[in-house]
Amino acid sequence: MSAEKFLSAGARAMRSSLIRQLTGLVNRPDVISFAAGSPNAATFPHERFTEIYNDLTARERGRIFQYSVTRGNAQLIHAVCGRSREIKSIAASPEETILLSGSQQGLDFVGRVLLDPGDAVFVEMPSFIGATAAFANLGARLFGVNCDEDGMDIDHLARQAASARKQGLTPKFAYVIPNFQNPSGRVWSPARRRELYALAARENFLVFEDDAYGELYFDDAAPADLLPVKALDEDDRVIYMSTFSKILAPGLRVAWIHGPEAIVRRIEFCKETGDLCTATLSQRIVLEFLRRGEMPAQTDRVRAFYTGKAAKMRAAAAAHFDGLAQWTRPRGGLFLWLRLFAAIDTLPLLRESVERDKVAFIPGAPFFVDGSGSNALRLSFSNVSDENIEIGISRLSRRVRERRP
Amino acid sequence: MSAEKFLSAGARAMRSSLIRQLTGLVNRPDVISFAAGSPNAATFPHERFTEIYNDLTARERGRIFQYSVTRGNAQLIHAVCGRSREIKSIAASPEETILLSGSQQGLDFVGRVLLDPGDAVFVEMPSFIGATAAFANLGARLFGVNCDEDGMDIDHLARQAASARKQGLTPKFAYVIPNFQNPSGRVWSPARRRELYALAARENFLVFEDDAYGELYFDDAAPADLLPVKALDEDDRVIYMSTFSKILAPGLRVAWIHGPEAIVRRIEFCKETGDLCTATLSQRIVLEFLRRGEMPAQTDRVRAFYTGKAAKMRAAAAAHFDGLAQWTRPRGGLFLWLRLFAAIDTLPLLRESVERDKVAFIPGAPFFVDGSGSNALRLSFSNVSDENIEIGISRLSRRVRERRP
Repeated sequence: MSAEKFLSAGARAMRSSLIRQLTGLVNRPDVISFAAGSPNAATFPHERFTEIYNDLTARERGRIFQYSVTRGNAQLIHAVCGRSREIKSIAASPEETILLSGSQQGLDFVGRVLLDPGDAVFVEMPSFIGATAAFANLGARLFGVNCDEDGMDIDHLARQAASARKQGLTPKFAYVIPNFQNPSGRVWSPARRRELYALAARENFLVFEDDAYGELYFDDAAPADLLPVKALDEDDRVIYMSTFSKILAPGLRVAWIHGPEAIVRRIEFCKETGDLCTATLSQRIVLEFLRRGEMPAQTDRVRAFYTGKAAKMRAAAAAHFDGLAQWTRPRGGLFLWLRLFAAIDTLPLLRESVERDKVAFIPGAPFFVDGSGSNALRLSFSNVSDENIEIGISRLSRRVRERRP
Repeated sequence: MSAEKFLSAGARAMRSSLIRQLTGLVNRPDVISFAAGSPNAATFPHERFTEIYNDLTARERGRIFQYSVTRGNAQLIHAVCGRSREIKSIAASPEETILLSGSQQGLDFVGRVLLDPGDAVFVEMPSFIGATAAFANLGARLFGVNCDEDGMDIDHLARQAASARKQGLTPKFAYVIPNFQNPSGRVWSPARRRELYALAARENFLVFEDDAYGELYFDDAAPADLLPVKALDEDDRVIYMSTFSKILAPGLRVAWIHGPEAIVRRIEFCKETGDLCTATLSQRIVLEFLRRGEMPAQTDRVRAFYTGKAAKMRAAAAAHFDGLAQWTRPRGGLFLWLRLFAAIDTLPLLRESVERDKVAFIPGAPFFVDGSGSNALRLSFSNVSDENIEIGISRLSRRVRERRP
């Protein structure tokens, strides 16, 4: 019997993302991979985690392996709200806050709470594939919005919103990553953040702000221009999401959302039937880490690590790609985005680069909901040694030079 | 601004389950609670977990806090398939298997992969609320099927399937918990399992079998009559789910599904946009526990623990409820199901019982999709001390006696 005929309409339309399909190609151990977007395991404070784990089990025995409440550990919610107030100028109460099993779960649940099939969502071009795939799986209509160095082109966003309404679709939200975006590394200017908020208010849609990378700035002190859109929110219009994945460790699967109470309550309903609760041990490790006051030193260490990697990457790009491409100068995060001057499709380039040079990256097109971006590519410097950054970028530039028409 | 108006149709229809709403009432520390369905933390092998944790971090350092693959740790999948072959007579390949962040996630994902709004799902009366809520949240039409001591009334199931088709609805699956069901504690007879499979084949719908409690039998050796429906499956018709929550610890959030490859692949797509991966540390702890050969001794300990509790519970019920109610004699699991002879609504009874006797349970009606069962109640013996089992059941019987018309 074929089980295919029992699938829901949604399941029939589901696709694995191209990045996932490339996993086998880009994760070969002999390949210098700028593809993996994961944080570097050397930044995970495993020794502290081990101290904490042993203290917790000595004190609480089996209880840290019991179910926890769906909304998330109340003390951790309290601590997260305090941190958001302190370092992000976000005033969110525990009632406006929920913990999630990683921010991918937040993308899915926010989508489920807000989106009926055919609803319009506005996304940056390029945008994060995990987000566009989650919204598309729920039947959303994705409208790509042009971007420049300062963020979304707000006039284009307005035109896309008008176009959606003209087609009879309901604009529900704009999904944006204003700080060190995956994949572009771009930072939105404060003016653009204000303009986005103003347009959303005028056109009456929500803003879904993903701040996964906001603490990974390369400056010595937090730059003032990273203040989230949520800090401007006077009208319960912004859903803000961030995660411990990049500043602590992604395998813990702990993220959080601050948003309007009515939406957060529905996210909790989703989570109640979606996974009941986030892993209890993970929540307790994070809580204890915060309680012990370890986070400032930890984020300093993580920032120093990526600041060094990014400097190597920028130097290698300057040495080898001058005249071949333009690229972002990331001020934080894990990514550098490179657009080739020549019309070279980076998907076949990837296959060639892996086979012949043993160098991997992610082709640009999947990040664009309008199918453009085929001459772009995403380079992550997170998991590549300093030496291999230079070797890999040099080989890649040679390959591009050779492939120029 | 009210965020309510942005909610999806699905979110507007979402409800928190009655059990969740009762949480505040039944979890008061001064109350003897037969309400909590969670396993007892005394059964969690936290000392072994701690040894394993320290070995793992010494060897692998930060890497056990990295992302893992969406399908689940390949070695753990392999080990789970081996266990299912050995103790459940289930022949499932790794391609037919996926790990999940707890079986509640499996309920949600199987629902999303199979159900379009209005599709028919057949459930036992009573059935597990976490399942019926997940399917209802996805817009399924739930058809309750009468049950007796041996499981579902298969003739009634056939009539319900006919009734669904007559209404123009597509029967997608029957959701069943044949071993030590939550809430009834009931075990299906082997004949009923065969009849269910045969009817599903004839009427062409799937079977979704939830075996969360199957290893918690009170006999010395595994009773032959617990063999899952999946062991009969010659036609890729059965989706089988089980979990480490009851035999190891629920806070780890690790469960698994064996099912048709086409369905498991779509569940993987769901998980890719749903939570990316299950907590890495949890998967590694479970894998190492299995590798060290600890599971047989652990399940023996867990079984001994609940066998003792259940015996106390049965003795207390016999001493106090004779003539007042009929109840199941559980041969395994965590629950005893009690149906009062008098027409007493157990929801107001609960409030009275908590306020005046400090004894809590779960009222029966929420477990019935047709709204019946108001004179029934679920009693869990998992988290009550032996002494309090006797005290609590005695008080409850007095309250029932007093309330009799």
